[in-house]
Amino acid sequence: MLQQLSAQELPKVEQEMTDFITQYTTQEDLKKSMLYSIEAGGKRIRPLIVLATVQAFQKTLNAPVYQTAGALEMIHTYSLIHDDLPAMDDDDLRRGKPTNHKVFGEALAILAGDGLLTGAFQLISETTLEPTENVLLIQLLAKAAGIGGMVAGQAGDMAAEHQQVSLGELKAIHRGKTGALLTYAFVAGGILAQQPAYVLTLLEKLGGHIGLAFQIRDDLLDVVGTTEALGKQVGQDEKSAKSTYPALLSVAGAKDALEQELAQAQATIEQLTKAAGFQPQVFQELLALFTL
Amino acid sequence: MLQQLSAQELPKVEQEMTDFITQYTTQEDLKKSMLYSIEAGGKRIRPLIVLATVQAFQKTLNAPVYQTAGALEMIHTYSLIHDDLPAMDDDDLRRGKPTNHKVFGEALAILAGDGLLTGAFQLISETTLEPTENVLLIQLLAKAAGIGGMVAGQAGDMAAEHQQVSLGELKAIHRGKTGALLTYAFVAGGILAQQPAYVLTLLEKLGGHIGLAFQIRDDLLDVVGTTEALGKQVGQDEKSAKSTYPALLSVAGAKDALEQELAQAQATIEQLTKAAGFQPQVFQELLALFTL
Repeated sequence: MLQQLSAQELPKVEQEMTDFITQYTTQEDLKKSMLYSIEAGGKRIRPLIVLATVQAFQKTLNAPVYQTAGALEMIHTYSLIHDDLPAMDDDDLRRGKPTNHKVFGEALAILAGDGLLTGAFQLISETTLEPTENVLLIQLLAKAAGIGGMVAGQAGDMAAEHQQVSLGELKAIHRGKTGALLTYAFVAGGILAQQPAYVLTLLEKLGGHIGLAFQIRDDLLDVVGTTEALGKQVGQDEKSAKSTYPALLSVAGAKDALEQELAQAQATIEQLTKAAGFQPQVFQELLALFTL
Repeated sequence: MLQQLSAQELPKVEQEMTDFITQYTTQEDLKKSMLYSIEAGGKRIRPLIVLATVQAFQKTLNAPVYQTAGALEMIHTYSLIHDDLPAMDDDDLRRGKPTNHKVFGEALAILAGDGLLTGAFQLISETTLEPTENVLLIQLLAKAAGIGGMVAGQAGDMAAEHQQVSLGELKAIHRGKTGALLTYAFVAGGILAQQPAYVLTLLEKLGGHIGLAFQIRDDLLDVVGTTEALGKQVGQDEKSAKSTYPALLSVAGAKDALEQELAQAQATIEQLTKAAGFQPQVFQELLALFTL
């Protein structure tokens, strides 16, 4: 099921993004710079979760679903462009390709990020959804991406560089940095599938566990993975003395923590089976993506 | 009237911004960095236009008006922070104070800009307006600030550096860079004052003329103004070989162009007098701000 979503439905999300950027951008360099990063690919895990959630409730995948998923991926892409800048993580490569500022220069990379961020809100505002749903999807996206979510997580991550943080502080950083957008993906899917409040709450809980699992797994792979299998340089976290789950808990402890988050995600999926029309299969497949 | 709006109503807009940032920001450095730029003051011309427009139609200034005006000023402030970055204009001073990145470092300045931009959409989405109005205000703000508006204008301005552009190209750049947000201020005021479509169209036209007048005046002051009177270094445009109205049209020609834009703004205000409840006085005072 997930395979089919990836192969057949994700391209429609990608089309929405490129169509939107191509249609609205009035400056050629800016357009190229944004399309470069949007078309660089990546796992597309956030839009995939949106699609999977709508499908789990047996609702139709339609234009507003693709557009909301696309807006979310645009926000994620902007955050990568800004995160790669020399003043931030100073990365030259992303997904095996030169980073945006390496190709287009820093100024245009900053503007491409600003454009994708602003465009994401325009894209959602232009769906054919009911205005109430529309405002809710915009509000939750701004919260997840913003000063109490992803941007705050980034600032916290920077502040924590080269200093020891507690497990609680590390969790708080990652809840913002990666957890907020992943959680939004589940909740937005629930809203698009017209689910009641208690289901949205369960989806938010599921997103929280998946978000932490995602980060713990990522930290673990940097220690136990290989550069060949991952397609990126491993051992970077230790080199930059970054606070990670394996560093704080040991590799074995981090593996336990990952297992726990996945078990709690599993328990939440079981609670969701009470919801009308819910079919757990696609979520089970999703969960498998986060195991080591 | 405008004086009274500035003295008594603008502080309420400023309060909305600081309250919002203080309430929602979960990371201390990020909060300080955003508040530093928000509290740095400036002319607040965009929120003032929103307030003036609502008042011109004799409608009540209330929380949604202050919040929308605040969101617009947050967008303007983010654009200044990013524009001042070393990779962009590389400015050390803004309004006589060190620029954001000079105080907080480049990384936090980038994030403060991202946070203000994202926060602006959250702030509007949380007003008590009707969802339909809410979506419209968000959509038009994203369009004005984004890839067919301000961000595109910035990218165009960069592309035009150190090369001769035509008058048409210069107008297009400024229509994005400064015109789009100024126009939004008038249109948003009209939406908040529940005006019909034909009035919104007139307000958009008025905003276009005021936007160009703003830029021509700014360019002229850099040539004919004094550092003392303006509180900023004059002669900067010529030094950086920037395309400006005086450079393209001569000083006399630019003065004529300014007069023309203001005359057309005046004519548009006269057309607005047909609208129910419209009182032109506050717009007349506003227009006076843009004369040399």
